[in-house]
Amino acid sequence: MKFTNNQKKDTKVFALGGLGEVGKNMYCVMHGEEIVIIDAGIIFPGGDLLGIDYVIPDYTFLKRNEKKVKALFITHGHEDHIGGIPFLLQTINIPAIYAPNQAVGLIRKKLADRNIKYKNLFVYTEDTKVKLKGMTVEFFRTTHSIPDSHGVCVHTSNGTIVYTGDFKFDLTPIGPMANIHKMASLGERGVSLLLSDSTNALNEGMSKSESKVDETLSEIFRRTNQGRIIIATFASNIYRLKHIVDTCKRNDRKIVVFGRSMENNIEISIEGGYIKHKDIFISASEANKLPDNKVCLLCTGSQGEPLAALSRIANGSHRQIKLKGDDTVIFSSSPIPGNGASIARTINKLYLKGVNVYTNTSLSDVHTSGHGNKEELKLMFRLMKPKYFMPAHGEYRMLKAHTDVAVECDIPRENNFILSNGDVLSLYKGKITKAGSVIAGEVYVDGNRIGDVSTAVMKDRKIMANDGIVVVIANIDIINGKLLNNPNITTRGFVQVNENIELLKKLETISKSAVMKKINKPINYTDIKNEIISDLASYIYDVTGRKPIILPVIMDVKKNALQK
Amino acid sequence: MKFTNNQKKDTKVFALGGLGEVGKNMYCVMHGEEIVIIDAGIIFPGGDLLGIDYVIPDYTFLKRNEKKVKALFITHGHEDHIGGIPFLLQTINIPAIYAPNQAVGLIRKKLADRNIKYKNLFVYTEDTKVKLKGMTVEFFRTTHSIPDSHGVCVHTSNGTIVYTGDFKFDLTPIGPMANIHKMASLGERGVSLLLSDSTNALNEGMSKSESKVDETLSEIFRRTNQGRIIIATFASNIYRLKHIVDTCKRNDRKIVVFGRSMENNIEISIEGGYIKHKDIFISASEANKLPDNKVCLLCTGSQGEPLAALSRIANGSHRQIKLKGDDTVIFSSSPIPGNGASIARTINKLYLKGVNVYTNTSLSDVHTSGHGNKEELKLMFRLMKPKYFMPAHGEYRMLKAHTDVAVECDIPRENNFILSNGDVLSLYKGKITKAGSVIAGEVYVDGNRIGDVSTAVMKDRKIMANDGIVVVIANIDIINGKLLNNPNITTRGFVQVNENIELLKKLETISKSAVMKKINKPINYTDIKNEIISDLASYIYDVTGRKPIILPVIMDVKKNALQK
Repeated sequence: MKFTNNQKKDTKVFALGGLGEVGKNMYCVMHGEEIVIIDAGIIFPGGDLLGIDYVIPDYTFLKRNEKKVKALFITHGHEDHIGGIPFLLQTINIPAIYAPNQAVGLIRKKLADRNIKYKNLFVYTEDTKVKLKGMTVEFFRTTHSIPDSHGVCVHTSNGTIVYTGDFKFDLTPIGPMANIHKMASLGERGVSLLLSDSTNALNEGMSKSESKVDETLSEIFRRTNQGRIIIATFASNIYRLKHIVDTCKRNDRKIVVFGRSMENNIEISIEGGYIKHKDIFISASEANKLPDNKVCLLCTGSQGEPLAALSRIANGSHRQIKLKGDDTVIFSSSPIPGNGASIARTINKLYLKGVNVYTNTSLSDVHTSGHGNKEELKLMFRLMKPKYFMPAHGEYRMLKAHTDVAVECDIPRENNFILSNGDVLSLYKGKITKAGSVIAGEVYVDGNRIGDVSTAVMKDRKIMANDGIVVVIANIDIINGKLLNNPNITTRGFVQVNENIELLKKLETISKSAVMKKINKPINYTDIKNEIISDLASYIYDVTGRKPIILPVIMDVKKNALQK
Repeated sequence: MKFTNNQKKDTKVFALGGLGEVGKNMYCVMHGEEIVIIDAGIIFPGGDLLGIDYVIPDYTFLKRNEKKVKALFITHGHEDHIGGIPFLLQTINIPAIYAPNQAVGLIRKKLADRNIKYKNLFVYTEDTKVKLKGMTVEFFRTTHSIPDSHGVCVHTSNGTIVYTGDFKFDLTPIGPMANIHKMASLGERGVSLLLSDSTNALNEGMSKSESKVDETLSEIFRRTNQGRIIIATFASNIYRLKHIVDTCKRNDRKIVVFGRSMENNIEISIEGGYIKHKDIFISASEANKLPDNKVCLLCTGSQGEPLAALSRIANGSHRQIKLKGDDTVIFSSSPIPGNGASIARTINKLYLKGVNVYTNTSLSDVHTSGHGNKEELKLMFRLMKPKYFMPAHGEYRMLKAHTDVAVECDIPRENNFILSNGDVLSLYKGKITKAGSVIAGEVYVDGNRIGDVSTAVMKDRKIMANDGIVVVIANIDIINGKLLNNPNITTRGFVQVNENIELLKKLETISKSAVMKKINKPINYTDIKNEIISDLASYIYDVTGRKPIILPVIMDVKKNALQK
């Protein structure tokens, strides 16, 4: 950690995740000897992070300042805001976690699934005020695609910091309205620094209301008298799920849920009372016995993910569900950038099977975003009237666009701070300056274990994915300094073995001479390995143009020990 | 006046103008022995009101309750909100008029032009509170197309009534922001009844910001290096005028103004400090001496009005300005419904002359409305949280659409009141009921004289416009009961006289026998006239299919008096 002004009695604000990316949100406010954390998210890895299940922020700074950490505040129950909690709790002691009702349900489930016991998880409401020694934290209700989304307001002696969380201004929401009156009142009392959601900062106008989507879905249900309705949507959009359940109820259709995340979210939402009609859910085998026009299949896979339910149904490879010509499939979603091709593939397969497909277009409002467009971001600025602005949640092009909106709303350009994760702002007596940075980065999680996949491992996986691996096993009599037989060459993902006998023979020869060159006493394993690697690598590249991982294994047959 | 519950100590709210129409806004709140009026507008007559200059509300109710009238509050300086003031002051005594700064300038000018002396015209600001015996009135700033637009809030012991005036939520306005914080605070304190602007209630989404229009106009100015720029816009859009002036200043163009209303508004705006660069304005003859790319012509006629400057320029009939091929014409306006054809005619003439024309399209943002679309109306509901709603400003289809928006914003359908001018709402201890009606109607103003054109006169004008007039003059010796000669038939707008000698001769014969039938002592003028009318009307209709006005004039030659 290298603060440039850590002597001052200032308040420090920084992100450990969420800047330059959409995901793993984690924002910190440090005042005196106290740190509060807002959100603890994960990000789902892109296709280039092979075998990685999640990416979480680097918690090193928090670990080193563990005693200062007083509380974690959660804005809402989406994975990019709560997904990191199990890993954070495994790393440091968090005295208390405050979250809104729906998020508490999801966090409890998450901790139970991983068998983590944690007692200090509290529900907050808009009336809650959490008072620390130097900070007071309060909350205001927003509208988003999950119930109980809130913004967080941290009051300090240096000024007030407001973090919006994810939000849109849905003026005809399915759930309760955003508390614009509390926002206005916070703005009146004075906000020094606003951190606001940049996800849709590139989009003009206002986002569509969730009510509009509801109308369209209802209309499709009304029109569809024959066949099953299959809906693919985001498991995280609880309001959408709620509406689909209500619409099925009205249209006398039972629901089969496919996809683990969908099942979890529905379960928690039923427990929390957000979704009613528990008896509407049936199993696939029960559904197959009902008339088709009494059935709705609700599934993940709206992004064309190859293993998700919808893709398997479209492929014809789903164990329980086979498509029929009078099925209607609704993509109640929008493509996440990069997923266009796989979605198109799924849609093409569906059309091939002759089913009716609805996607979100200007003509058919079957999806809306949970994040506000430019006019909504403007309204937030106008309500909060912050002196300084730091765009949160988003790639840099979104953060930049958001600062342009801020400038339009009378926040001077020089009061806008586009930061990277780890960059620190210092708020001192209402004035903000940049103040160095803290350690921040990505930590990969494979399965449920934190930090057991290093960047080097990831690099290897990528190389193997491209060019494969060549394993060279050499048996050596270490005492007598003798190679006991020709090195064994084993490959994976490199070349077709039976079509490349000559090449592999040649590699064996090269390996043998490499070992012979270096097999003088005292035997240095590293020397031998390096010689094998360098000789093989250059030959392989010359002949095949590839750069596989070369893994020499020297075995001391006497010791009978494997040494890598 | 027939209130159905005028015994109660209630607060009555009604419109004398503005409902079922776009114009002549006038809303009244009556509490105990006090009446406050909000706005006093005119409406410009449609093409079917021949020879009428303005239409104003019927002030009969106010005249009969003159002593109760305590004050007139003006929301902003547009004609449909202030145009009636001279006529109102001629009719009743108004103890005080409160208006925002820009409106005060325009009202002063208006009164001076008509030589009306009035001393109690006061400027209000957002800090002003006007306290009457039973009512307190305060104001909140809105955004609209003229500076200093405000909403009005009337607090009474029965509840609070808020009237928005004209507004949009322009989140990047040219002038100051709307005071959403004060609106939120009023909403928090509790609003019983909201009267809100319905003009654009049929439009989805949010209206474009005036800033967006400024960008486009600036860009057109930058691109236009050659030739004059001719801009037609609404004289009432002061922000637009201000921007055009600023843009001309930056691009080194002088401005010639055409159109009386445009000249007036610019003059007042310069006096009020809203428009700067007084020296940029030059005369047409000065402009004709400058290079074309140093000149901008700013004119009325954006609606294709045949007598307005732009139409005459397009026709080639303008005294001072002849079009040139490298002129650029910008319609910084949108068509008022019904004007499409005349605008198209003007544009076609401009293209015929080979000039470059910009109109407001999705590709070129050269105009935006001053009234909010649906999302803005929703935001007003959400801020004010009124218990009851009465849509104001607009035709019934707009009022209806506005109540649909209200219902979406959680105001129960039964708490919405679509009224007509004169209908009365009674607010009693926070609860609203319908309570009869007061006299309301249209009064036509011909020239500057109030009420000298009755509805009957208008009807005559319409008939004459369609079928003309037939005047029958009969000279009678009243003492002896004798018709002295054949009646004289004179027509205007009826038939071509020289081609219808026979017809006119026949009318003379019919008139003569009609007189003869009734000419017995004592002579009854009315009997004779009615006989002439009925005999002629049926004959004329049978022969020509027309229904001209028939005007018999009986002259007593002895008295030498003309009796109609």
